[in-house]
Amino acid sequence: MESITLFSPATVANISCGFDVLGLCLDGIGDYMTIRKSDNNGVVISAIKGQDLPLDPQKNVAGVAALSLLKEYPTDFGIEIEIDKRIKPGSGIGSSAASAAGAVFGVNELMGRPCSKRELIKYAMAGEKLASGSAHADNVAPALLGGITLVRSISSMEVINLPASEEIHLVVLHPQMEIKTIEAREVIKKEVSLDTAIQQAANLGTFVSALYTKDFKLLSRSMVDLLAEPYRSKLIPKFDMVKKAALDFGALGCGISGSGPSIYALVEGNEKLKNISTQMERAFQTTAIPYELHLSKINNDGIKVIR
Amino acid sequence: MESITLFSPATVANISCGFDVLGLCLDGIGDYMTIRKSDNNGVVISAIKGQDLPLDPQKNVAGVAALSLLKEYPTDFGIEIEIDKRIKPGSGIGSSAASAAGAVFGVNELMGRPCSKRELIKYAMAGEKLASGSAHADNVAPALLGGITLVRSISSMEVINLPASEEIHLVVLHPQMEIKTIEAREVIKKEVSLDTAIQQAANLGTFVSALYTKDFKLLSRSMVDLLAEPYRSKLIPKFDMVKKAALDFGALGCGISGSGPSIYALVEGNEKLKNISTQMERAFQTTAIPYELHLSKINNDGIKVIR
Repeated sequence: MESITLFSPATVANISCGFDVLGLCLDGIGDYMTIRKSDNNGVVISAIKGQDLPLDPQKNVAGVAALSLLKEYPTDFGIEIEIDKRIKPGSGIGSSAASAAGAVFGVNELMGRPCSKRELIKYAMAGEKLASGSAHADNVAPALLGGITLVRSISSMEVINLPASEEIHLVVLHPQMEIKTIEAREVIKKEVSLDTAIQQAANLGTFVSALYTKDFKLLSRSMVDLLAEPYRSKLIPKFDMVKKAALDFGALGCGISGSGPSIYALVEGNEKLKNISTQMERAFQTTAIPYELHLSKINNDGIKVIR
Repeated sequence: MESITLFSPATVANISCGFDVLGLCLDGIGDYMTIRKSDNNGVVISAIKGQDLPLDPQKNVAGVAALSLLKEYPTDFGIEIEIDKRIKPGSGIGSSAASAAGAVFGVNELMGRPCSKRELIKYAMAGEKLASGSAHADNVAPALLGGITLVRSISSMEVINLPASEEIHLVVLHPQMEIKTIEAREVIKKEVSLDTAIQQAANLGTFVSALYTKDFKLLSRSMVDLLAEPYRSKLIPKFDMVKKAALDFGALGCGISGSGPSIYALVEGNEKLKNISTQMERAFQTTAIPYELHLSKINNDGIKVIR
């Protein structure tokens, strides 16, 4: 294989009750990347379409992730990466994760697949570290593995695939404003009460159970975030109104996607999907901020090879 | 029905990763209770065998629990309760919960079952409140419902039954020393770091997933308690050695049962059970403290009617 073109999906991290550990993979929105063998040494980012991002591989998440993989698996060929960046950086739907995951996935394929998708997570995290200052896996894991993932441990790289029902759909409303992951982390309390820790854990445990039993009412009740949303929601204009609109019109849950500003809603089936998204739009239109809207199923495959 | 005799089981709360929310029901150890209709008004505790506990129904957990149920469902008959108390108070395996759950279960049967087992939880919690100073459900829920339970919410009384594999066995080593629930709660930090809260939640989510998939290796890795064990274990002599012995000889997990001092170990199958319990005993015998040992399967029925 000399070249591979792939779709690297956007992801929703946290899913309210799983701060820093849960993530899910979207279908409707993602980057396109072409990764080729080349005669040069090392990694070259030859083109980035759609966004103004550094071409220097040491300063680009795709470059850093690819280099981290190549460091452990040296090759006798160079790598050239071309990115059609459809996910805006700072959107909260895993823009850097898509670049990092796509890069390691593509390079791994060109090398004859020395790593499993699961093993690629840690190399993709090197890219995430460049983007946010801390290596986390709650976006790269679902981007690589698809579905809904739970990261139990970063140090032992333990990631669990949770059952993602075909009936779960999502609305993602992306306000066209940037909240940097680093800033979004700073507003969160570094100490929490014991009661908060217990309740957050109980909600996550319930969410996991509800996924296995497909009990969507229970799933809905479990989707409460006590760690991040109370603080981060203030960074997003009209967040409370958008959330209320989503829940009033039947969404199972609604919250901040990753570190925001994107707001996601989880919806059972697709009959209500259009109406819920319209109601969320109306609520957000009371601001003057432009936004993008994505409707999506859960993507159970993760990164998809196009050719 | 004029009279009912029942077995009210001991329970293991917390199960390491589910502090204050998880609990499981034992089979091999529990109280026996006989509850009868009588001509007197209200509740009378006519006899308690095995332990020195107050007969005044206002000061007895079984009495308080029964009275709390009768307050909402008045009857034209009185209640007489006789208890054969096999679970020692302060053991950490739900002694008060067994009394409270057994009382409300029995009274409910005599009344013609106005409440479901699930609805009885809140009345049993009134007894728990008397015993420990706070109303919690992590012992009464598994005592009433059986199996492994997750209490998502006390205020909305939401309790989830998790799948309890027939292959799970338990060793419970009960040092004959008392740790009061109130004391055991005082040693725990009331504030925890965000990272601790995240890791505890991730472990609980993983534990729940592993129960559904019967992945015992994953279950084992998830059974880590960051909230209580680091502090409470110091109250139990040789805890670390007993735990090490259990894990070295193949237990899936080992920790403090409820607020202690009982130490439980979870074991897959029953081949290794005897050896693991012997190793735990040996480790504990380095203290001069007498102990009791219980081997048990998980009891998926909860309270059992004997006649």
